[in-house]
Formats: sequence, C-alpha cells, structure tokens
Amino acid sequence: MKLHDLELSGNCYKVRLFAALTNIPIEVVPVDFLGGEHKRAPLITLNPWGQLPVLEDGEVVLRDSQAILVYLAGKYGKTDWWPTEPTDQARVAQWLSTAANEIQNGPGAARLVDKFGIALDKAEAVRRAEHILALIEGHLAHHDWLALDRPTIADCAVMPYVALAPEGGVALAPYPRIRAWIGRIKALPGFRPMPGV
Amino acid sequence: MKLHDLELSGNCYKVRLFAALTNIPIEVVPVDFLGGEHKRAPLITLNPWGQLPVLEDGEVVLRDSQAILVYLAGKYGKTDWWPTEPTDQARVAQWLSTAANEIQNGPGAARLVDKFGIALDKAEAVRRAEHILALIEGHLAHHDWLALDRPTIADCAVMPYVALAPEGGVALAPYPRIRAWIGRIKALPGFRPMPGV
Repeated sequence: MKLHDLELSGNCYKVRLFAALTNIPIEVVPVDFLGGEHKRAPLITLNPWGQLPVLEDGEVVLRDSQAILVYLAGKYGKTDWWPTEPTDQARVAQWLSTAANEIQNGPGAARLVDKFGIALDKAEAVRRAEHILALIEGHLAHHDWLALDRPTIADCAVMPYVALAPEGGVALAPYPRIRAWIGRIKALPGFRPMPGV
Repeated sequence: MKLHDLELSGNCYKVRLFAALTNIPIEVVPVDFLGGEHKRAPLITLNPWGQLPVLEDGEVVLRDSQAILVYLAGKYGKTDWWPTEPTDQARVAQWLSTAANEIQNGPGAARLVDKFGIALDKAEAVRRAEHILALIEGHLAHHDWLALDRPTIADCAVMPYVALAPEGGVALAPYPRIRAWIGRIKALPGFRPMPGV
C-alpha cells in the first residue's frame, strides 16, 4: 500500500499520523512536488485533482486525505477511530467536513501563502482561521477530543493544519485548550511528528 | 426527527433530497434566516457554528450537511447510499470532502454573493467553480454517478450547489455531462426539487 506523499503537506501528514498511531503499514513514496510530479502522468492519472496525498492499494486509488483515513480505518477494522454506529460515525464525519473546508481554507490556506508563496487572499485565510480556531477552542471547553470521548480520525484530520497555523502567521497563544489538545495527541502511543508540528 | 431548515439553502436541500429519495421521515422546521434565528438561542446552542441545517433527533444534534447524510443513511440502513464496505465507503467519502470544500467554496460561494449579497471574493469563487466543474465533467465521462455504479449520498451532497451554479453567474452550458447527471438525479423515484433546481 503506497502513500504518494509530500513530507511538508499537512494533508499527507494526516495519513502518516493515523497510520503511525494505529500501526498500519504504509509505504511512503515521496513525490517531487516542486518539480510538479503530481501534475504529470502517472500521478495525474491516479488523481486528476492534481493533489496529494494519493493512496494506491492494488486496484484501489484514493484522493482526499479524509477519505483515505476512512478507508484505512475501515480496512484495518479500527472502529475505535472510525465507528460504525451511526451517531458516533456522524459525530466524526462533522469534523471531516470541518477539516476539508474550514481548516483547509483557514490555517491551511494562510500557511500556503506564507510557506509556499501560493497566491491566495491571506487576510481572508487568517480571518477564517481565527473564526474556526475560536469555535474549536470553545468546543474543547467541554471535550478532550473533537468527536467522541477518545481520539478518532477527526483529531487526525483536524490537528495538522491547526498545529501548523503559526507557519501561516496565525498564533496559537490565544487558544490554550487547543494547545492542550495538540499536547494530548502528541502524547498518544506511536505519535509521529512532522516538520513544524 | 427535526431538520432546522432554510428552503433556499443548498446545504439544507441535500438532506431534504436524500430523505425524499429514500423515504426517510423528517420534520422540516423553517428557520427565520434573514431574522438571524440561527445566530441566537436556542439554535446557536444546538449548533455553535451558527449554520444550517441542524438535525435534532432526540438527544442527537448534528451540524454539517454531509454528516447528517451519513447519520440518516446509517440510522435507516441505507447501505446502497452509504456503503459499509471500506473501498466503496471511501469512494463516497472523497465526494463528501469535495462537497464540503470545492463545491461550497466554488459555486456555493458565488451564489452567496449574487443571491444573498454576502461579501465574498466573487471572482475567486467563480474561478474555483469552473475548476471543480471541469473536474466533475471529466469524471462523468466514465461514470454515470459520482462515487459508485449507483446513486449515493455523494450525489446528494454535490448536486445541489452544482445545479444552483447559474444563480451565482456560473453557467452549466459548457458541461453537458453534468447536466445529464443532474437529469439522472431528477429522474430518480421520489425526487424532490427546490427553488432553482
């Protein structure tokens, strides 16, 4: 099972983190991102979106980091992390949407501008980042983990770009509960860091 | 089971559409959106995000239209629409992320500007809309439905803001396969429209 990967990508890190926390074996295949390898064949054929990560497991090819977490948890029976019971599963799914939208377009986008020089609206990204970080800070007043009473793929999907927010000029100092939550994730057995986290 | 709803919201329509196609009984409770009812108690307590829809099923309260689709499909055993098998489930999950991000911030955002006067970057929304519509048009060259060989919650999550794209000044004329796919959804037994679709 190959993960076409960029080490500095928070989206790729979601998958590496979850695999590390759950002892799922994946072969990490570095992609020459700056050289545009993901925009050319064969990768663009595997993922016409032209984004990383891409998971290749025999005939199964998946784009989108959230979907890859769902796949790995399902394939390896990690129901603690991705429950099959509808209410619990939906509580996790809420945060997968948050990761795909508010986190990607908030702290994720701000970091793309500062770290990779991507031409996005930095002020709008920072505004979105501060909005979602305040909501998460409020949520963590009553919860140790995002979705359930234990870590789930929701935490793996949301944490990377939150922890990397300072690389986009968004400080985490105003969010003590978020910093404590990141600390709880870092304390999990098997935790694996990435540069900046 | 109550759906706190706004008739003109494509996100709310995702849920009404799926419930109609699968005969799931929901009580639709209209929210005074222009009066800001969703920003005040009791709704802001149910959903601190301050967004619609919100699903209330006894003690279970869910925000995020994608998560609500996951919940309803799971609770009512609609495994054709939201499979339990990991590969199929992940293929659907890819499109739930697409609905939450690219669709919301593309055609969804363009419509928010034109129809509701929300101050977003219209040119950026149109650029994102055209980018994702072209990707979907390419995908539909080889698929009748987005995720699997049958309709799933992926189609329910993505279709509304695609079909509503012209209300944000994004024409669907260049995308014949998308128009045919919308037609296939409209032809499903139980299909329910919304204004603009």
